[in-house]
Amino acid sequence: KAQQTEDLLNLLIKKNVLTQQEADSIRADEAIKEQAKKESLANRHGISIGKALQISGLVQARYQGFEQSTVNNSFDLRRVRLDLRGNITDSWSYDIYTEFGGTGVKLVDAFVAYTVADYLKFSAGQFKIPFSVESLTSDSQLEFSDRSQVVEALASRTKDVIGNSNGRDIGVQVSGSFAKIDDFYLFDYSLGLFNGAGYDVTGDNNNHKDLSGRLSIHPVKNLSVSADFYNGQGNYGTPAINQKRNRTGIDARYVWKALSLTAEYDKGTDGTIKRSGWYGQAAYFILPKHLQLAAKYDSYDPTQTSLTDRTNWYTGGVNYYFNDWTRLTVDYTIRREQTLTQVKNNLLNAQLQIVF
Amino acid sequence: KAQQTEDLLNLLIKKNVLTQQEADSIRADEAIKEQAKKESLANRHGISIGKALQISGLVQARYQGFEQSTVNNSFDLRRVRLDLRGNITDSWSYDIYTEFGGTGVKLVDAFVAYTVADYLKFSAGQFKIPFSVESLTSDSQLEFSDRSQVVEALASRTKDVIGNSNGRDIGVQVSGSFAKIDDFYLFDYSLGLFNGAGYDVTGDNNNHKDLSGRLSIHPVKNLSVSADFYNGQGNYGTPAINQKRNRTGIDARYVWKALSLTAEYDKGTDGTIKRSGWYGQAAYFILPKHLQLAAKYDSYDPTQTSLTDRTNWYTGGVNYYFNDWTRLTVDYTIRREQTLTQVKNNLLNAQLQIVF
Amino acid sequence: KAQQTEDLLNLLIKKNVLTQQEADSIRADEAIKEQAKKESLANRHGISIGKALQISGLVQARYQGFEQSTVNNSFDLRRVRLDLRGNITDSWSYDIYTEFGGTGVKLVDAFVAYTVADYLKFSAGQFKIPFSVESLTSDSQLEFSDRSQVVEALASRTKDVIGNSNGRDIGVQVSGSFAKIDDFYLFDYSLGLFNGAGYDVTGDNNNHKDLSGRLSIHPVKNLSVSADFYNGQGNYGTPAINQKRNRTGIDARYVWKALSLTAEYDKGTDGTIKRSGWYGQAAYFILPKHLQLAAKYDSYDPTQTSLTDRTNWYTGGVNYYFNDWTRLTVDYTIRREQTLTQVKNNLLNAQLQIVF
Repeated sequence: KAQQTEDLLNLLIKKNVLTQQEADSIRADEAIKEQAKKESLANRHGISIGKALQISGLVQARYQGFEQSTVNNSFDLRRVRLDLRGNITDSWSYDIYTEFGGTGVKLVDAFVAYTVADYLKFSAGQFKIPFSVESLTSDSQLEFSDRSQVVEALASRTKDVIGNSNGRDIGVQVSGSFAKIDDFYLFDYSLGLFNGAGYDVTGDNNNHKDLSGRLSIHPVKNLSVSADFYNGQGNYGTPAINQKRNRTGIDARYVWKALSLTAEYDKGTDGTIKRSGWYGQAAYFILPKHLQLAAKYDSYDPTQTSLTDRTNWYTGGVNYYFNDWTRLTVDYTIRREQTLTQVKNNLLNAQLQIVF
Repeated sequence: KAQQTEDLLNLLIKKNVLTQQEADSIRADEAIKEQAKKESLANRHGISIGKALQISGLVQARYQGFEQSTVNNSFDLRRVRLDLRGNITDSWSYDIYTEFGGTGVKLVDAFVAYTVADYLKFSAGQFKIPFSVESLTSDSQLEFSDRSQVVEALASRTKDVIGNSNGRDIGVQVSGSFAKIDDFYLFDYSLGLFNGAGYDVTGDNNNHKDLSGRLSIHPVKNLSVSADFYNGQGNYGTPAINQKRNRTGIDARYVWKALSLTAEYDKGTDGTIKRSGWYGQAAYFILPKHLQLAAKYDSYDPTQTSLTDRTNWYTGGVNYYFNDWTRLTVDYTIRREQTLTQVKNNLLNAQLQIVF
Repeated sequence: KAQQTEDLLNLLIKKNVLTQQEADSIRADEAIKEQAKKESLANRHGISIGKALQISGLVQARYQGFEQSTVNNSFDLRRVRLDLRGNITDSWSYDIYTEFGGTGVKLVDAFVAYTVADYLKFSAGQFKIPFSVESLTSDSQLEFSDRSQVVEALASRTKDVIGNSNGRDIGVQVSGSFAKIDDFYLFDYSLGLFNGAGYDVTGDNNNHKDLSGRLSIHPVKNLSVSADFYNGQGNYGTPAINQKRNRTGIDARYVWKALSLTAEYDKGTDGTIKRSGWYGQAAYFILPKHLQLAAKYDSYDPTQTSLTDRTNWYTGGVNYYFNDWTRLTVDYTIRREQTLTQVKNNLLNAQLQIVF
């Protein structure tokens, strides 16, 4: 159709109904709008089919080299994800996010949301628990290939006592942002009520519903300082019984030009066991938009009463962005045990990622 | 591109090639057509990408409160469904309907269809057995959150002896509508040949193929009176052996303005056990298009020879439609056992649903 | 919007700004372009949403009749596949291909590819091993409903010692085409490094990475002559141990007008067992584009040292193409054992397929 309008413009010029200049100005107006639209689209992923459906996805092809001789160096598909989301009306939206990587297919997110205003949004279904900045960061936007030890242990991830739920649970949530200063909000909040039995389940394993909340403050733009908690009763252990499963945490993230800094401290109680850990990391683009160096210190104490089980991990990594959607991440983690005898368990990750 | 045409119209007005009125009429024609298109689209779901692909979906986020102390009150994802369908040509179409809710991912429907005319359509693959009006009603359009006891037991659903197949099986079917009066058909028919081993299987568990058929009559518009049967041999029981699995049923549904009435009676034979049940329900919009009240009586006798195992369920419910695509259903079911001692098993359902 | 431009053209004619002829020429130019676009699209499947996403799929509804009395004649869904692929940039592309048929959902392909030029393309993730012309032929384009015995046994398919991986594995690959003559390339090559543990796994089961390569020559257009190899160490057997898993093969395919000829010979070593097999097949369109007859001879020797375990299969089949996207395949296979006593195991396949 664009061509037809173009042909018409040319004909009208030839017939002296329009001057060349007038036709050009129509073309230019259009071009400017198109460009603005393209630029706004360039910053987000996903292919939109109207407002009601946006399809996006993530593929992470990985190679892992293990120092241990008992673990096999392997190629694998870390994540193969498809996301369908959309706005049914201005207020109502949905999101269905699925994982095809690994063995079997899983539902990652599935929720319905109702947005009253920026300061008030209701969600129902399966989505991320509002705990830990690193857990809440999209998998595709982490600056390292793995999350930190304490986050994997306390934010419903691989080392959590209730098993790996990818940081998700099923329930309802109210959230929002308020106190606008110029072009950003001073505060974000989230408060959710969850089963506390993990994701992809057909029901709760006890009658207790878990409460989790998070408050973020942005004293300046691009700085987030947050505090969060999770107050639950899980059904776990051998044999599985109802036990306390509480967490509290604080974290901060600051992005300034090519530099990004993140730090987080979390502690938790599983039954009678107290755990805690923290990490600090920095990443810097030495080639704007393309080459990023990153370093991280990550310390975790799985049992506060034991003085020999802390593990400290040192990670150095490189991210090369081929374009906005494609990234190669290579990082190496040195793992140090608190005990005198060190385990050979360092890890090399090489991960090629495409988002669409 | 719309903007470009708009700019051109404005310029032609300025140059006195067109009058303001003439330009407006072009705009108005377009606006009327757009509006008509929008209205016709408003009545159906799904996002179309040409004729060959239409993507739609359903998310049901639920909370259940159980009177029993042995069942946990829970949040869950009742259904998370994606549907891809399309018309490859005027005659050939396909449908792939998947379920991501619960544990694991399932294929709900997958078939190829060839439409000769309204009165003759062939289908091959996995789809709904033509039995029971309630089983054949879309999950998103039920007036209550659950189906009736007899339908769950006899229409290849949760309580069927061959297990839950969501009312589906794998096979071939011929169906159609004929005898048109004004704008509706007097008769609909379906006749299918199925494995009889349920859905999502890689083969039949016996050599017998099951036959199922249904005939609906519409004496007036919006009234359906139907009779149906299922004649099969299933491989079930402990140990699993080939046994009779027959059903017959009649049902009727009438919609008149804000009121809808539905009733169904089914009986069946599993091996030597005869079962039967029926329900009657009414729903009424007290707030047009938005607030609907519904009541249902549902009675089921799982063993005709036993006089103490009938269960009668009384359900009252409310449906609030936020818009055409979003609905909140809250209903409460009182369950009465035929025996003198009553079980505490009433059930509260609250379900938020979005279709797209 | 097209209508708006149309309305404007009509008005400009009425006002004598344009002549009827001039308006028609604008319309015609557009029509020619539309037609050309339609024709180029008609030759491929998939529904495109821009360059970045193309959705396509495959449904195969099948009926199998078995001569054996121990196997049940069955309807089933042979394949229900969805494919999402796209080009993020001119160089970077992705593909996510999923299988919803059978029991459970599987990831078939998932990879990221970087194309430097026709002669150099890198892939990472899960995709087909470059071995066997029949294994590499799309499921929807096979001229029979099943693949050959030797391909099922040696190309990571149903009878492979490591189990069925649909011809896929996880790893990295370099491939390309070079030496262009007129409109085709003389050579295609692929060289891949794989886990060798099959598809849809979370890691390798040994530290050995398997190497596979394939070189195709096209002496004339539509003729391919290829040689390929797979050099691996699998972890299999009872109990599973690391053992040799090597294959080599040659194959040729020639298409000339309505006729297509294919032949392939493969041999392999699993541990100490040597296996080999070959097939030759011909297919001919007796009704251009619609009715194709096909015949195949397929011989497989699973243990070279045993003189009684060879099986020879004779298949005759018919393919009816309703249109470019819909095909009915009916074929019958006579299976002959090398031993004197023949097993009753002939097989009838009837399969309706739609691709979109």
